[in-house]
Amino acid sequence: MDYSQTIAHIHQQLLLEKNHGQVAGYIPELATVDSEKFGVCLINTDNVCFWAGDWQEQFSIQSIIKVVTLSLAYQKLDAQLWQRVGVEPSGTPFNNLSRLEHDYGIPRNPFSNAGAIVVCDVLMELFSDPREVVITMLRTLASDEAIHFSQAIAASEKSEGYRNMALAYFMKSMGNIMHDVEDVLDLYFDVCSIAVNCEQLARIFIYLAKHGRSADDRHSYLSRAQAKRINAIMLTCGFYDEAGDFAFRVGLPGKSGVGGGIVAVMPGEFSLAVWSPRLNEKGNSYRGLRFLEQFTSMTEKTIF
Amino acid sequence: MDYSQTIAHIHQQLLLEKNHGQVAGYIPELATVDSEKFGVCLINTDNVCFWAGDWQEQFSIQSIIKVVTLSLAYQKLDAQLWQRVGVEPSGTPFNNLSRLEHDYGIPRNPFSNAGAIVVCDVLMELFSDPREVVITMLRTLASDEAIHFSQAIAASEKSEGYRNMALAYFMKSMGNIMHDVEDVLDLYFDVCSIAVNCEQLARIFIYLAKHGRSADDRHSYLSRAQAKRINAIMLTCGFYDEAGDFAFRVGLPGKSGVGGGIVAVMPGEFSLAVWSPRLNEKGNSYRGLRFLEQFTSMTEKTIF
Amino acid sequence: MDYSQTIAHIHQQLLLEKNHGQVAGYIPELATVDSEKFGVCLINTDNVCFWAGDWQEQFSIQSIIKVVTLSLAYQKLDAQLWQRVGVEPSGTPFNNLSRLEHDYGIPRNPFSNAGAIVVCDVLMELFSDPREVVITMLRTLASDEAIHFSQAIAASEKSEGYRNMALAYFMKSMGNIMHDVEDVLDLYFDVCSIAVNCEQLARIFIYLAKHGRSADDRHSYLSRAQAKRINAIMLTCGFYDEAGDFAFRVGLPGKSGVGGGIVAVMPGEFSLAVWSPRLNEKGNSYRGLRFLEQFTSMTEKTIF
Amino acid sequence: MDYSQTIAHIHQQLLLEKNHGQVAGYIPELATVDSEKFGVCLINTDNVCFWAGDWQEQFSIQSIIKVVTLSLAYQKLDAQLWQRVGVEPSGTPFNNLSRLEHDYGIPRNPFSNAGAIVVCDVLMELFSDPREVVITMLRTLASDEAIHFSQAIAASEKSEGYRNMALAYFMKSMGNIMHDVEDVLDLYFDVCSIAVNCEQLARIFIYLAKHGRSADDRHSYLSRAQAKRINAIMLTCGFYDEAGDFAFRVGLPGKSGVGGGIVAVMPGEFSLAVWSPRLNEKGNSYRGLRFLEQFTSMTEKTIF
Repeated sequence: MDYSQTIAHIHQQLLLEKNHGQVAGYIPELATVDSEKFGVCLINTDNVCFWAGDWQEQFSIQSIIKVVTLSLAYQKLDAQLWQRVGVEPSGTPFNNLSRLEHDYGIPRNPFSNAGAIVVCDVLMELFSDPREVVITMLRTLASDEAIHFSQAIAASEKSEGYRNMALAYFMKSMGNIMHDVEDVLDLYFDVCSIAVNCEQLARIFIYLAKHGRSADDRHSYLSRAQAKRINAIMLTCGFYDEAGDFAFRVGLPGKSGVGGGIVAVMPGEFSLAVWSPRLNEKGNSYRGLRFLEQFTSMTEKTIF
Repeated sequence: MDYSQTIAHIHQQLLLEKNHGQVAGYIPELATVDSEKFGVCLINTDNVCFWAGDWQEQFSIQSIIKVVTLSLAYQKLDAQLWQRVGVEPSGTPFNNLSRLEHDYGIPRNPFSNAGAIVVCDVLMELFSDPREVVITMLRTLASDEAIHFSQAIAASEKSEGYRNMALAYFMKSMGNIMHDVEDVLDLYFDVCSIAVNCEQLARIFIYLAKHGRSADDRHSYLSRAQAKRINAIMLTCGFYDEAGDFAFRVGLPGKSGVGGGIVAVMPGEFSLAVWSPRLNEKGNSYRGLRFLEQFTSMTEKTIF
Repeated sequence: MDYSQTIAHIHQQLLLEKNHGQVAGYIPELATVDSEKFGVCLINTDNVCFWAGDWQEQFSIQSIIKVVTLSLAYQKLDAQLWQRVGVEPSGTPFNNLSRLEHDYGIPRNPFSNAGAIVVCDVLMELFSDPREVVITMLRTLASDEAIHFSQAIAASEKSEGYRNMALAYFMKSMGNIMHDVEDVLDLYFDVCSIAVNCEQLARIFIYLAKHGRSADDRHSYLSRAQAKRINAIMLTCGFYDEAGDFAFRVGLPGKSGVGGGIVAVMPGEFSLAVWSPRLNEKGNSYRGLRFLEQFTSMTEKTIF
Repeated sequence: MDYSQTIAHIHQQLLLEKNHGQVAGYIPELATVDSEKFGVCLINTDNVCFWAGDWQEQFSIQSIIKVVTLSLAYQKLDAQLWQRVGVEPSGTPFNNLSRLEHDYGIPRNPFSNAGAIVVCDVLMELFSDPREVVITMLRTLASDEAIHFSQAIAASEKSEGYRNMALAYFMKSMGNIMHDVEDVLDLYFDVCSIAVNCEQLARIFIYLAKHGRSADDRHSYLSRAQAKRINAIMLTCGFYDEAGDFAFRVGLPGKSGVGGGIVAVMPGEFSLAVWSPRLNEKGNSYRGLRFLEQFTSMTEKTIF
């Protein structure tokens, strides 16, 4: 199927519409981005690529990386991982402490900040150099050695990351963080800081459209059953307190980040990355959501 | 695809396994059911039927009816309905009051008890005889005029329904119930009391596998976009506090009831009903969940 | 000690100050009261009376009655009563459901609505005609047979009492209400509806300034140890979510009602009633609180 | 009044009774204390001293110091202080995060851990050497230069203080901690580590029995109105989640610490310190509470 026209059409139309929302302001370094950037890239399982707009411009991957770190931990530990983090939607914002207290320090799901911090703690257990493992997976999937950490972004987040410190220290008090809190958060902020563009992001997520395998089938990152489960968690928990709404409107597993990126996956068919920095009040890209809603309506490509 | 052998095989194997959980005890009339009953029925979009075990025995539909009442309200009101009830997973048990208080009387989703009670209030607004409208939809979809309300079950629930009274009065105090609380709960308990068997249930839910249309294409209950959205809500909210786990293990939209029934839908392919009365601690059929998990693993039929 | 001048002085000064707050609007019948009424009456343990302003005008006793109903239940059951209701401040508004859910249907204290409803349920257990017992206690203490229930107020509250219905049904679902919910709430609304004036109210509460005994020492309503404990509960829980602030500013045990009345007790010395219908945002009489704060500052009469 | 016999009698009787509860185990250094120690000391406003048992043995002051740090901050800032911390009972355990989140980082009261941490942050603002100011106040009131910080206790607490780190970082994320979190917690743990005996503790708290003034009237630590308010906060918030119960049973303002100490104040009459290391499940000294309940019952010395 040729998505060129559909993508171009929706992209153009949205540029004519009024844009809404705010660029993430709480990370000083992110606040400087041009708020009107708008890129799209779709890669299908035959490795054909469709694009529009600022698809080659780099932005900060932020929470989208949580899917990759989760996949690395899940591949190694399989079901054992769920003793440290749940798979249920939380019904609360991404950095909520009350829920965590109620659940004795076990985060509800791996895409809340608390859950992703636990996953980083797990990666420190599993790998001697977890940063290297993460960046290698991204570079291999995207066939692009240029993907890199952004020290400026990571440093900027660390300087203001008091809420994440609170989450991590709370979990440590409950026995669910094994390593030094500052070291775990360093890893967390580093992986969130990675810079990607829409093409790289779409290429990276193709393993979830291909049941765990890379585009060239040379690497298997997850078993078929594991890939299904990561997709399920993306669907139920991928959009903070707006996960139900995303499933409802878009109908694809996906994950957003406060850098304005969103990636969505149609299992067996394609991976699709959009980027637009203005965020709605739930912290998800306003124009990104609009694009995906219209794209799935027009193409009837949805898992439901 | 012929599912006969797969269904027979899993059904037999599970009969050999130890059964777990408790029959719903809080509704006196439900507690008398034979706990070892176990039936399965799958209907595909070509109207071919596959079955096993006690697929022709009747049980109480209970919360599964919430999908039907929601569909009726949604068909009439479309997006306007979401002013009265949300579409987000709640992260709490099915009869939680705290969440409702936090959200000013707007239930998080239509499959919580509070949400389903609001939907009943809406049906009383929309239809002069909502019981008739509900039962007619079921009879038409199942091509079976014998489907009926169970006065004994409904009366039994009303006699112990204090928590639902509390939920309904709380929402009335917040202005989200328009009619008399006792009348709304009468309707709620009546529709939950309806008796069905696995075959009827599978036939009823075929409209969600067929993008809103009946098996014979003569009736349209929902638009394609609406059907997709009901399926999305089933996936994210269909299993109380275990919705994430169901999406994760089974990977299909579905809905459970405390009568021990579960229905799951593979859009474009089939509707599948299972029944086994023993419930796990989250209130979902133990053996029903086991069946669905094994069925989707063996057939690789999943939306993810 | 002669309090005439102090009372007159503060009363006059406050009349010159701008009045703030709103008359309770949620009970239709209460909303019609003249918002600028302002009365004071102090009775000391020698039965000497000091007064100012509208001290002889009647108003609705509302939540202040909860102290009397609690005393009646406590006199009969002593410590056994605390199996049904706690003695801890709740840290939440007077009609909160979340806290109650967290505590499995045991209200945190007897002055929350939930707690007072449980006390009414207890009175129905203890007395064949609890209304008669309550009104007789009030008439005897005030030496005034004219004190009466207000059917208009009670009916007005019942017509809008959905939140209290929710609280009561929730507690019934948890096994902490024994009688029919509507009967218990009828009693609750009836005792809250009683009309009193400042003099009557001050006379009634003298038993808590006299360690459980009536002004003429002919009746003993509570043991010395019990009276101390009721006073302690008034101090820690008497002002909804503002109890700490009242202890802090005024420094006397007391109880407020949405009718605009407040009663305060200096053990061993006096009972003091004030009335002014405008309520602050926490539901306590604005001018009443101002009066008590200034009175205890000027006289240095405080338990601390 | 001569309390010698009463104190000796209750002390002896309690030694014959079975002791209950556990020594605070979460601070390694505290866990080594002899669990059967039991001391009492009462000082009246004429500076007469009554004692029993291990009244001269040192223990860790822990949370009791929060009254002293609060007094120092309140003396300087007066009502301005309440912009940073409330005066309402919390209805939750001493280290609860949910409540804090609900209140946007403003602790409910100054005796929760969060509240006391904010007070330490305030002291760092007000004084160039807050440790010196605190220890000088204690030494002056107790007329004893030997009172000292315990580095071993403070270091032991810091090594396990993850929950307090979580509280402090959360408040910093909400803008209610101005200084470096580690520095604030260093001060917090240092002042909690101070070693005292019952006599010193009773002498220290005499300023709250004397409306703000020292035993020899040479120092004024608080105005009369301020002293009343500190006593009121002790009464409503001094015993974590058991404040209502303490007011109810004992009927005096007081404060407990996990070192097993409790101090209580009868305004205008005396200050009374007890020490016994075994704690009940709410974290308050089991035998200390028993002593105070019996003492106030026998002497009828209570504010109510």
